[in-house]
Amino acid sequence: MERVEKLKEIGRKAGIDAFLVTSEKNMRYFAGFSTLAIERFAGTIIPVKTGAPIVIIPKLEEEKAKKQSAFEEIRSYADSENPAMLLNEAIKELKLEKAVFGVEGTLFFRFYRMLAESSSKIRTEDASTVFSQLRSVKSDEEIKIMEKIAAIVAEGIKAGIEFIKPGVSELAISSEIERTIKEKGGESIPFCAVLSGSNSAFPHGETSSRKVGKKDVVLMDVAAVYGGYYADLTRTVFVGEATKTQRKIYDIVAEAQETAVKSVKPNVKAEEVDRVARKITEDAGYGEYFTHRTGHGLGLEVHEEPYIALGNKTILKPGMTFTIEPGIYLAGKFGVRIEDDMAVSETKGKILSNISKELLVI
Amino acid sequence: MERVEKLKEIGRKAGIDAFLVTSEKNMRYFAGFSTLAIERFAGTIIPVKTGAPIVIIPKLEEEKAKKQSAFEEIRSYADSENPAMLLNEAIKELKLEKAVFGVEGTLFFRFYRMLAESSSKIRTEDASTVFSQLRSVKSDEEIKIMEKIAAIVAEGIKAGIEFIKPGVSELAISSEIERTIKEKGGESIPFCAVLSGSNSAFPHGETSSRKVGKKDVVLMDVAAVYGGYYADLTRTVFVGEATKTQRKIYDIVAEAQETAVKSVKPNVKAEEVDRVARKITEDAGYGEYFTHRTGHGLGLEVHEEPYIALGNKTILKPGMTFTIEPGIYLAGKFGVRIEDDMAVSETKGKILSNISKELLVI
Repeated sequence: MERVEKLKEIGRKAGIDAFLVTSEKNMRYFAGFSTLAIERFAGTIIPVKTGAPIVIIPKLEEEKAKKQSAFEEIRSYADSENPAMLLNEAIKELKLEKAVFGVEGTLFFRFYRMLAESSSKIRTEDASTVFSQLRSVKSDEEIKIMEKIAAIVAEGIKAGIEFIKPGVSELAISSEIERTIKEKGGESIPFCAVLSGSNSAFPHGETSSRKVGKKDVVLMDVAAVYGGYYADLTRTVFVGEATKTQRKIYDIVAEAQETAVKSVKPNVKAEEVDRVARKITEDAGYGEYFTHRTGHGLGLEVHEEPYIALGNKTILKPGMTFTIEPGIYLAGKFGVRIEDDMAVSETKGKILSNISKELLVI
Repeated sequence: MERVEKLKEIGRKAGIDAFLVTSEKNMRYFAGFSTLAIERFAGTIIPVKTGAPIVIIPKLEEEKAKKQSAFEEIRSYADSENPAMLLNEAIKELKLEKAVFGVEGTLFFRFYRMLAESSSKIRTEDASTVFSQLRSVKSDEEIKIMEKIAAIVAEGIKAGIEFIKPGVSELAISSEIERTIKEKGGESIPFCAVLSGSNSAFPHGETSSRKVGKKDVVLMDVAAVYGGYYADLTRTVFVGEATKTQRKIYDIVAEAQETAVKSVKPNVKAEEVDRVARKITEDAGYGEYFTHRTGHGLGLEVHEEPYIALGNKTILKPGMTFTIEPGIYLAGKFGVRIEDDMAVSETKGKILSNISKELLVI
């Protein structure tokens, strides 16, 4: 229960009386299990001062919760019942009718209303940063799990690269990557984008039935999960040949990526690392085509703190984990992105994944 | 733009001045494209009286949006910029500083706060039912797409059944189902649960590396997407033998499912269909083991209106689509669920999927 104690400590300092944990990831982090909370309410009230946490979940999650929950007090409701009743009861029991609740930024409007309507004196604050700060610093055990899944995703991308040849569809390459990741132990593969030719110019494009041409760029961006934790890697390769422009763009992205990776160490600000990557693309005259941030934190979520982005003054600490993934996108032509996962150690940055980023022509 | 016009008409009647559409599915339904809005804001303001809708999206979605958007006015922000500025500007332009906004129940707390803080006179209402009512009645084109994906998922489950034998893992069966669905044209497979032995007693269990035993129940619950629309089917089969108890439970579930299917027609209330299924499990003495509702609406989302559940007085109309999926779960032993997808026609209910539900011993 070290995580809950730390949460309470932060809450006390921040003037928060109770937390309402609702997201799948924070439920997993604090309560030890996750729920499929699509349209049904599921959450845990964690009082800061006195009283034990109360978990409220749909009846059909009860069996699983009883097996896995870190908290004793589990209350469930059937589909025909209203979870607002259980929430009201719990708030009264814990004497939180006038409390300041720290809620998640992702709390659904309808559940926020449910909380707000349970007592007119309840105030709500977005406590996302409290949760994200806690979760952003990983333990050695967490980092070991992340290394394992990074290695699995790297295997998947390597298998994808070997599978690429003219005439093979993006979907088929994607399937080959997914098959490999599952074989190696990946639990789920939230995305496995394979974008060829001009599709690669969409930073968030969708894998299609388009067949790889004889002279195409192929960009693979793959995220998979093991033990609840993510890896997220991207490689861009060339089929048949790489034109002069393509080589130039690749070299700029690779230099931006490597220089940013080397700039990672404790006490550097997150935005500094972004600036390092951005400066290289700008100096090369392609700054405007690098349309996204340099990276994002990684852990139980594929996007979490610390964001490696301009304006993020978060100071990097040992245990923080994130991606470094600059890219340049020439609309209608092609795009290049190179993405690795990193952890901050006591003295520097350490790449979690192990996969070449030399320019590769297949 | 028929959908937008209908939305405005409902808004006018309900005293709503503008809608803020934010979910991926409603963006797709109204704006014609979807965004990967994980932590970045993406939304469309649809004014009810005058003015054209304004889309606000992250810069990295801009290329895709310009290609696909049904709305002209697209404004984007870079990662280093604050979307609240664009939202404020749009609200001023559209003269919505004192408006009643219809928002989605799934709107994130932090985006709700962004809207609420843009003008102290803005009021917000949960307009989820407006959106869900509109979307719950499908056109013939939408139903054709749903039949196609239901047929694809049925093929997947049939391939899974052929693949089952003692010693094969749940994960391997799941992979075989997924491979088949992709081959047949399924675009994504949000879940493909294969639960064997006592795992089948978890209504929302997770596929594991557990190997199927010589005398096991295997429950397969598979949802896949084509053209944005879902199919969601479940079949439960027996390996080696079905015990007397297992046959009895299967027969009860099958009867509950078939009777509920036959009770579907226009002007029947959703809860009536649930009651039909529930009565059969109750009369057989297993009511308490049927721990969830009988079904859920299906469309752009895997769970949407109309929910086939006690308390839902929604009157079924031609064009509505949903699952019928009673189940009985004996904790520690096994579970049985049978799930089909249906559409309400002008006179009755029509099953979208075509797959046997005879008791099957492999």
